[in-house]
Amino acid sequence: MGKAMLVFQTDFTYKEGAVCSMYGVVKSVDRSLEIITGTHEIPQFDTWSASYRLYQSMKFWPRGTVFVSVVDPGVGTPRKASVALTENGYYIVTPDNGSLTHVDAVFGIKEIREIDETVNRLKGKDTEDVSIFHGRDLFSYCAAKLASGIINFEQVGPLYPNSGILRFPILEPSVEDNKVSGIFEINDPNFGNLWTNIPLVDFKSAGFEFGDYLDLKIFHHGEEKFSDKLLFHKSFGFAEKGNPMIYNNELMKISLAVSQGSFSEQYNLGYGSDWIVEFTRRS
Amino acid sequence: MGKAMLVFQTDFTYKEGAVCSMYGVVKSVDRSLEIITGTHEIPQFDTWSASYRLYQSMKFWPRGTVFVSVVDPGVGTPRKASVALTENGYYIVTPDNGSLTHVDAVFGIKEIREIDETVNRLKGKDTEDVSIFHGRDLFSYCAAKLASGIINFEQVGPLYPNSGILRFPILEPSVEDNKVSGIFEINDPNFGNLWTNIPLVDFKSAGFEFGDYLDLKIFHHGEEKFSDKLLFHKSFGFAEKGNPMIYNNELMKISLAVSQGSFSEQYNLGYGSDWIVEFTRRS
Amino acid sequence: MGKAMLVFQTDFTYKEGAVCSMYGVVKSVDRSLEIITGTHEIPQFDTWSASYRLYQSMKFWPRGTVFVSVVDPGVGTPRKASVALTENGYYIVTPDNGSLTHVDAVFGIKEIREIDETVNRLKGKDTEDVSIFHGRDLFSYCAAKLASGIINFEQVGPLYPNSGILRFPILEPSVEDNKVSGIFEINDPNFGNLWTNIPLVDFKSAGFEFGDYLDLKIFHHGEEKFSDKLLFHKSFGFAEKGNPMIYNNELMKISLAVSQGSFSEQYNLGYGSDWIVEFTRRS
Repeated sequence: MGKAMLVFQTDFTYKEGAVCSMYGVVKSVDRSLEIITGTHEIPQFDTWSASYRLYQSMKFWPRGTVFVSVVDPGVGTPRKASVALTENGYYIVTPDNGSLTHVDAVFGIKEIREIDETVNRLKGKDTEDVSIFHGRDLFSYCAAKLASGIINFEQVGPLYPNSGILRFPILEPSVEDNKVSGIFEINDPNFGNLWTNIPLVDFKSAGFEFGDYLDLKIFHHGEEKFSDKLLFHKSFGFAEKGNPMIYNNELMKISLAVSQGSFSEQYNLGYGSDWIVEFTRRS
Repeated sequence: MGKAMLVFQTDFTYKEGAVCSMYGVVKSVDRSLEIITGTHEIPQFDTWSASYRLYQSMKFWPRGTVFVSVVDPGVGTPRKASVALTENGYYIVTPDNGSLTHVDAVFGIKEIREIDETVNRLKGKDTEDVSIFHGRDLFSYCAAKLASGIINFEQVGPLYPNSGILRFPILEPSVEDNKVSGIFEINDPNFGNLWTNIPLVDFKSAGFEFGDYLDLKIFHHGEEKFSDKLLFHKSFGFAEKGNPMIYNNELMKISLAVSQGSFSEQYNLGYGSDWIVEFTRRS
Repeated sequence: MGKAMLVFQTDFTYKEGAVCSMYGVVKSVDRSLEIITGTHEIPQFDTWSASYRLYQSMKFWPRGTVFVSVVDPGVGTPRKASVALTENGYYIVTPDNGSLTHVDAVFGIKEIREIDETVNRLKGKDTEDVSIFHGRDLFSYCAAKLASGIINFEQVGPLYPNSGILRFPILEPSVEDNKVSGIFEINDPNFGNLWTNIPLVDFKSAGFEFGDYLDLKIFHHGEEKFSDKLLFHKSFGFAEKGNPMIYNNELMKISLAVSQGSFSEQYNLGYGSDWIVEFTRRS
C-alpha cells in the first residue's frame, strides 16, 4: 500500500480508445498501481474547468496522491509539461496551461518541475514520432514512474520558478452590510446549478442567515438577466420543486439551484467573469 | 481481501467533481478499500430507477458487498439516511426515499439503521456546514467505515422498524390461459428496450412458448398506443433487423425490443404504472 | 499480482445495470481480480469500432491481459462465443463477429477457441434461461475463470481454425511520389478528428514532411466533399484555432483535425470504405 494512487481527469470521454491506452501505459510501468477515474468529461479544451475540478476534490484524497490532469489544447507546442507538488502534499501531473490556477491560489504550489522528456517519456511501441498524445506518452508514463517510486520528484526534471506557472486571473467577491456581489465562477453541468465565488463566510459577514429571503440580481455584460427575491437555505429540499433558491454548496460557496430542476437552463444563464451576481437584503 | 467492496450508483454523472470527491473520502478512510463504479447515470432524482438498478445487479455480487446509492432529491431534509442489511447478506447505504423498494420486495430487508451523524459523518475539511452533499459527507464516509471494519453494522446508528421504510407500490401482473397482462416497469435507455413486470414463468403458465407469435397491445392512460402480432423468442437475433419482438430479459422478465433498434423510440413509448401491456394468443 | 487483469469494452453505456451485473459476476468468481473499464461507449452494434478499439489500446497493456469485448448484435444466435490468444500474448474474450479483424491483421491471432457453454457459463441466480446477456453469463464469467487461473486456455473450449474467424475486409492505402490516397478508417468521436488508414511511413515514402502544405481532396461515393490546401504538422497547436490541419495520430496514422474544433462536424464528413482521401503536393 506504500505506492501512491493515480487519479485521472481529462476531456477525452470514453468515446474512443485514449483512456484505455493511458491506463495500459500505467499498468505496464507497474502492475500494482491503483488507477482511479476522477472524470473524463471535463469540457473540451477547458483548462479553467480542469483547474477548478482539481481544487474541488483534491483535499478529500490522502496526501501523496498523484493527480493526472490532461486538458491540453496546446499539446505538441512549447507549453511546459509539468509536475507540481502542492503545499498540502499532493502531486499534479499536467500541462502548465492554467490548470494549476485554483490549486495554487487556494492551497499553494510548493515546487514545480518540467518533465524531462529524454528520460520520462514512453519509449518503443511506435510512439516516438507521436506528438499529439502526451496524456499517454508523457503524463501517464511519468506519473506512473513517480507513483511507483521508480523516480522521485527530483528525477521528474528541472525545477522552474513558481512565477513561471501560467495562472488565470481569479476575481474576489465584495462584501458590505446587507450586500454581497461576485461572479458565477463555475457550473454543475449535471444538475444545472451555478456556483459563485462567494464564500459562505462572506454571507455571514453581510448578516445573511439561512431562512432569509434575499434579492438577487444577475448581470451579463452589464445587462440584467435575472431579478427576484429568493430563499437562502441549507438545502434544495427547503424550496418547492421547480423553485429557484440560494444555498451553500459543497465547497462552502454560495450557489444557485432550482429544486429538482436546472437553474442555468431555466433562466438561460452561464458562468465566467462577465456574469455578475448581486445579493441584497432590504432591512 | 477481508474487507467488503463498495459499489456506487448515483445520478451525479462525471460532469463535475462530485464522484471524485466521494471516492477520495473513501480512500482517506481506508486506502485499501476497493471502489467499483456501478453507474453514475441513474436518471436525475429518479429514486424508482435507483431502486430497480440495485435489485438488477445485487445478486451477482459476493455476499457482504456494500452498495452506496445516492439518488437524493431530498438531501438536507428530514428523510432518513440509512444502512439496510438485506436477507441475502448485502449492505445498502442510501437515503430511505424509495430506493429500497425492489430489494425489499424481492430479497427482503433484514434490518435497517439510521446513520448517526454525530459519529459517522465526515469532520473537518470545511464540510460541517455543508448540507447538500450527503453522498460525500455521510454516505461515502459511513460506507467506508463499515466496509473497512472501523464500525460494525450496530455502530451505524439506531435500528428502526422495517415498517418505517419508504416503499413505492409495486404492481403484479395477471395471468390466465393464453392471456397475460402487466406494465412496463422500467426501460433499458441505452438499447431502447422496455421491460415488463411479467416473469417468464407467467408466460409459461399462460401456455406461451419461444417461437410463438403473440398479439401485443399497449395502452397508456387507457388509450391504445400499439397493436401488432410479434415473435416471442430467445434473443434479438431471431428477428429481422429493425423488427420488434418479445423476449425474455436478463432478469427473466418479458421484454420488448427492436432488433438492432430502439423499441421505445420507434413507437414512442414510455414506462410506469400507466403503461399497460397485454399479450394474447389466439388458439 | 500473478492474476491477469480484465479490461472491458462494450456498447452498453452505464445507463442501466448491465455493467454492474457483469462486474459482479467477475468478483463472484474471484474477489481479487482487477477490473479496468476500457470503455462502455462503443457505438451500438458497431463491431468494426470494437475491432479498431481493441487494436488501438492493446499493445500498451502488459502481456497476458484479458480483454473482454462485448458488442454483440447477434447474441443468442449461432455466432461463436470465443477466446482468442494473440501472437503478442493477449487474450480476447468476444463474440466472433468481426471484432477480431484489426488485431488479427496487425498483431495476428495465434489460436482461437469456442467457449464451452456447458462448463464456462454462469449457473444459478436464475440465469440459465437467459439468452440475451452473454456479456454477463458467458463472456464475463469465462474471462474471470481464465484470468483467475481456475481454467487455462485449453479449458475454454475446443480450438477452431483461424480460417473460421469472421473478418471484415481491410483496405490498403496507395503511395506514389507526391501522392498518397486511402480512406477514413475510423473517427475520434470526441474531438471530431478523422483517422485515415495511411501510416506516417507512407507519407515519408511520398516525400511529405512536417511543415508541408498538402492538397487534400475527400470523396464520398465518388463525389468531392472537400478540397483545400492544408498544413501537415506534428500537432494541433501548429494550426490557428478553428483551422483544419493534417497530423500524425497516436497510432502513427495520418489524420485530420480542426485545431480546438471538430473536423468531421465542420465539414460534415464520415468514415468507412466509401470515404476516399487523397493527398498530393505540387512540386
